Amino acid sequence: MNNLGVVKRNIVRAPRAAVEKLSRFGVASIHEAMGRVGLMKTYMRPIFAGAHFCGTAVTVLAHPGDNWMLHVAAEQLQPGDVAVVACTTDNEDGMFGDLLATSFKARGAIGLVIDAGVRDVKDLTAMPFPVFSRAISAKGTVKATIGSVNVAVVCAGAWVNPGDVIVADDDGVVAVPAAYAQAAADAAEAREANEAEKRARLAAGVLGLDMYNMRGPLEKAGLKYID
Amino acid sequence: MNNLGVVKRNIVRAPRAAVEKLSRFGVASIHEAMGRVGLMKTYMRPIFAGAHFCGTAVTVLAHPGDNWMLHVAAEQLQPGDVAVVACTTDNEDGMFGDLLATSFKARGAIGLVIDAGVRDVKDLTAMPFPVFSRAISAKGTVKATIGSVNVAVVCAGAWVNPGDVIVADDDGVVAVPAAYAQAAADAAEAREANEAEKRARLAAGVLGLDMYNMRGPLEKAGLKYID
Amino acid sequence: MNNLGVVKRNIVRAPRAAVEKLSRFGVASIHEAMGRVGLMKTYMRPIFAGAHFCGTAVTVLAHPGDNWMLHVAAEQLQPGDVAVVACTTDNEDGMFGDLLATSFKARGAIGLVIDAGVRDVKDLTAMPFPVFSRAISAKGTVKATIGSVNVAVVCAGAWVNPGDVIVADDDGVVAVPAAYAQAAADAAEAREANEAEKRARLAAGVLGLDMYNMRGPLEKAGLKYID
Amino acid sequence: MNNLGVVKRNIVRAPRAAVEKLSRFGVASIHEAMGRVGLMKTYMRPIFAGAHFCGTAVTVLAHPGDNWMLHVAAEQLQPGDVAVVACTTDNEDGMFGDLLATSFKARGAIGLVIDAGVRDVKDLTAMPFPVFSRAISAKGTVKATIGSVNVAVVCAGAWVNPGDVIVADDDGVVAVPAAYAQAAADAAEAREANEAEKRARLAAGVLGLDMYNMRGPLEKAGLKYID
Amino acid sequence: MNNLGVVKRNIVRAPRAAVEKLSRFGVASIHEAMGRVGLMKTYMRPIFAGAHFCGTAVTVLAHPGDNWMLHVAAEQLQPGDVAVVACTTDNEDGMFGDLLATSFKARGAIGLVIDAGVRDVKDLTAMPFPVFSRAISAKGTVKATIGSVNVAVVCAGAWVNPGDVIVADDDGVVAVPAAYAQAAADAAEAREANEAEKRARLAAGVLGLDMYNMRGPLEKAGLKYID
Amino acid sequence: MNNLGVVKRNIVRAPRAAVEKLSRFGVASIHEAMGRVGLMKTYMRPIFAGAHFCGTAVTVLAHPGDNWMLHVAAEQLQPGDVAVVACTTDNEDGMFGDLLATSFKARGAIGLVIDAGVRDVKDLTAMPFPVFSRAISAKGTVKATIGSVNVAVVCAGAWVNPGDVIVADDDGVVAVPAAYAQAAADAAEAREANEAEKRARLAAGVLGLDMYNMRGPLEKAGLKYID
Repeated sequence: MNNLGVVKRNIVRAPRAAVEKLSRFGVASIHEAMGRVGLMKTYMRPIFAGAHFCGTAVTVLAHPGDNWMLHVAAEQLQPGDVAVVACTTDNEDGMFGDLLATSFKARGAIGLVIDAGVRDVKDLTAMPFPVFSRAISAKGTVKATIGSVNVAVVCAGAWVNPGDVIVADDDGVVAVPAAYAQAAADAAEAREANEAEKRARLAAGVLGLDMYNMRGPLEKAGLKYID
Repeated sequence: MNNLGVVKRNIVRAPRAAVEKLSRFGVASIHEAMGRVGLMKTYMRPIFAGAHFCGTAVTVLAHPGDNWMLHVAAEQLQPGDVAVVACTTDNEDGMFGDLLATSFKARGAIGLVIDAGVRDVKDLTAMPFPVFSRAISAKGTVKATIGSVNVAVVCAGAWVNPGDVIVADDDGVVAVPAAYAQAAADAAEAREANEAEKRARLAAGVLGLDMYNMRGPLEKAGLKYID
Repeated sequence: MNNLGVVKRNIVRAPRAAVEKLSRFGVASIHEAMGRVGLMKTYMRPIFAGAHFCGTAVTVLAHPGDNWMLHVAAEQLQPGDVAVVACTTDNEDGMFGDLLATSFKARGAIGLVIDAGVRDVKDLTAMPFPVFSRAISAKGTVKATIGSVNVAVVCAGAWVNPGDVIVADDDGVVAVPAAYAQAAADAAEAREANEAEKRARLAAGVLGLDMYNMRGPLEKAGLKYID
Repeated sequence: MNNLGVVKRNIVRAPRAAVEKLSRFGVASIHEAMGRVGLMKTYMRPIFAGAHFCGTAVTVLAHPGDNWMLHVAAEQLQPGDVAVVACTTDNEDGMFGDLLATSFKARGAIGLVIDAGVRDVKDLTAMPFPVFSRAISAKGTVKATIGSVNVAVVCAGAWVNPGDVIVADDDGVVAVPAAYAQAAADAAEAREANEAEKRARLAAGVLGLDMYNMRGPLEKAGLKYID
Repeated sequence: MNNLGVVKRNIVRAPRAAVEKLSRFGVASIHEAMGRVGLMKTYMRPIFAGAHFCGTAVTVLAHPGDNWMLHVAAEQLQPGDVAVVACTTDNEDGMFGDLLATSFKARGAIGLVIDAGVRDVKDLTAMPFPVFSRAISAKGTVKATIGSVNVAVVCAGAWVNPGDVIVADDDGVVAVPAAYAQAAADAAEAREANEAEKRARLAAGVLGLDMYNMRGPLEKAGLKYID
Repeated sequence: MNNLGVVKRNIVRAPRAAVEKLSRFGVASIHEAMGRVGLMKTYMRPIFAGAHFCGTAVTVLAHPGDNWMLHVAAEQLQPGDVAVVACTTDNEDGMFGDLLATSFKARGAIGLVIDAGVRDVKDLTAMPFPVFSRAISAKGTVKATIGSVNVAVVCAGAWVNPGDVIVADDDGVVAVPAAYAQAAADAAEAREANEAEKRARLAAGVLGLDMYNMRGPLEKAGLKYID
């Protein structure tokens, strides 16, 4: 019951092929394809322009003002992983900086999603090590209270299990359950397949009203045109 | 994968005995007993002083500005249930008022937790029908887009599955997984068992520093007393 | 173009009969009856439980941290009026206290809606003088910069013209344009007319699903029931 | 009274010459020139650095989580227009993306101001299609509930009528009523006329205290210098 | 330089007579009398209606999610003291509950001001033990990291030194430096002296415009009356 | 007692050597070196990427919506100074723009920290004149109410005295008391001294768990590894 104080070593990561396929699509497309679930809150923003990644989650549940568990998590990271840090309560402290980033990168991690703050933004940008966080804060943390690694967490409003696929780009961060990763990738592909054609038609001046046959339903819903 | 558009009729509610035992303890004690997980965000507040309840969750995932699924949920409510409403995105619209409360109450529901707004607060208070919400808003909603009932949801930062125990009092709202309800109740009981004695000692002037033997650890941690 | 520095003395107040009729209905009903426009943001809350009023607006546009115009507005208040104070920018200073309330009350004003702070809450409660505000703040203000009285303002997200009807109760604050006051009252009356019958049916256990004939539309929208 | 469900086709746009003249000045200057009214809240920010525009408003009132009316608005857009989207309640959903932007651009629209979220930020930046929004969100929307097009709206705290001039730059967004557009442009021109000279004097070391003759008024206001 | 890890035992409390005199005035009057400094942010609210106190500060600087220092502070409390808890970063955890309240009360403390959360609100209300806090939260805390007691702190935007007078009522919380306590009390007394007369005149219908001789200054400032 | 209305001309600035040494270190390092005090809230952000400075504080206490005191402060600025503007209440108005920046720069000031808004961001970026603020706002201000210059202020949660060292970079803003400037610089230097070596080891794959000898303490704290 108590998920403070546990490190799970063996987790089932989403299939590599599914992760790679998902990496070809945007967060908005994947989120739509999943039925509009799994999106993190809009306060999660990249620390530098253009930051983006798609990898498998190693989750961390930390105590506010305490980054001890991030050091524990480093050992569990494998190439292609993304660290996903939740906190037992709202907190903006700078739990992660360039030393941890160096360590995470050495382990093969490709990014960080943290529902707290980060610091050393200049160094992280130079590396570059992409991070999505709720805040930037110079405030350091202690290493005094244990949390957990690779337990299920709620991060920025989204439920994340270890091994889930985490996709982050300019539009935000979405978590795709490992078991649905392939289906989500296929659905996203299907969604984007006919977008090029739609875009061409709209660019040519065709109205969505006509392309999507909306005029009838709008009239039925009671829309009135006046002059 | 898509959890929009599903109503699950048969859910496993936490054992009645566990729910009843949990109802004897406060949210703070239960949350501690669970290892500090499952607590909703502090923005969830009662609409009237003293509102409190302990029951089993029927969950709802609604679309912003749309309360259609609350009508669907009414049919799934059983005596002792609490409706837990999550929304696909942050929203404060008044999704719930006195008519729905009348219906929920007729079904035996004992409360509502909603990560959105409610209205008709005066009537709800008079009934009384206890509600914990993120806002009070007179804004009504449409009934146009389907969501789901009795799927797993994230409500105000907490993961809630249908059948979980929802405890709400002056200190907030906590969700206890159905499978851990009995253990959580037992742990809460153990926590509160010796509180009366502690309270008496503190009231008599004994310091927590001594009662909890903190002086040694504090000195070891480097605390310095100066004049 | 410049609406700083003007006091309009003659304003057209909503008809007395319409104001009186509106006073019989709740904010939620009136807002629905108006087509869901005119509602102020949910951060506008009463300073004491049960505060409510329905009156005609005398509007004020104030500078942050400056309550000079509230003294100017006092002279424009007539029996049955509600002062509606907007600010040129977000501000929580305590622009209004018991002395101004005494003056407003002597003029016949029945309430205040202020998109800023108020103070002397204990005295205002004792009088009682009902106030809906965005904050309670002991911070006093200067009297240094002119604003305007009885110009159109945006107050807490709602457009208010002098003479409009302002209705405030537990559910929030709504502004009804003077020209539509009678129609809004009639529409609210029509809305509430059959609520008693609906309430009785719901209390007897009839489901909204059946009472509103929702089952067909829900099925058409794709809702699936599973066990 | 009910402004949901109406599309006004013929609107009076501000004179072309006034719009062009306004486009030469910054938002801060225009806002000052108007007497400090019409500015949107500071949470409205550009989605990419340097985004700016000056055009005539086609307004939209949308339901939260629903972008149906943006498709309706597309048909009403003319070259030089800016779409201004308000919502019946606070909402951050991604109501606008690259497909709608392609359509709006094809109609001649030069920008978007939306009191909600947008997505496909990378594509919008590449086009480029300038947008000022309250949030960036991957969350898509439904097309289920009608709103209105070309009615008066409150967008991010500012009152906007169809045809008004919308000016947006690094400092924010201001709405200039169509009828005052020429006067506002003239007043802004007058304000900026002598700024070059002031700037030169200040750069040469002259103090504002002397240039604006503030020493006397400050002393009269009670300012004391101490060592 | 480092103010983590220090407990100052001997502090200079404001003179008893000054504290008693200050207790006769409201926060708004005292804040005005002090020249509008020392007020805490408006998010600091009482946990029950009517909570109020006036006492001398014992300050605490705590780490987020850690209430160890509150136990240390208990020993430093004397009759008439108010504990003032600041945190090294924004935090809403429930750092204080009924056991600590019992201990503080046994020491003679008369209230708590905490820039964090509290819990056991029902018990604190029953005692009663008045508290002003930024949040109510069931989330418990650890006892792992030392902070300090009786160092200068910034609490909710106000600078507080140990021994300062803390006055809290319905309008908020103000900190009065110990050295100015008597002068502040005298100034508050002077402010309130002629309020009764002013109130009587305003109640009789005299306008503030006339009572304060504002008509001339308003005209000079450019205020125009129109019909 | 009243700190409104005073300008202190002679202030003791931190020693030049200490300021120069501090300028070599980042805000995060300095904040840690100081024992985690003096950091401003995370809402203080640079108006352009890469903005940074390290200088001595000339403080300003302003009234909301009023920038009169910034003109007064200009005269007190010396080469190497940073203006630090606090406000008597939360305010986002654009108190500072390109004309004041021109004046401040002519006086030798190297930056601005303002717990309010700024405007003319495009011009400030072009100059460049680095600014850290809580908001960007086109809203101008009046010059009507006096505040103070070179008094102690609370700015964005940090206590700042005139002459203190203000260091600002991508990670935020920290205030270092003048008397501790040299010690803080030395401590920051010591902190960064062995970071290069640590970084190299982490980059080579050594885990923080081992480098910092955390495995024992973690086990002692109760951390469990499961498979």
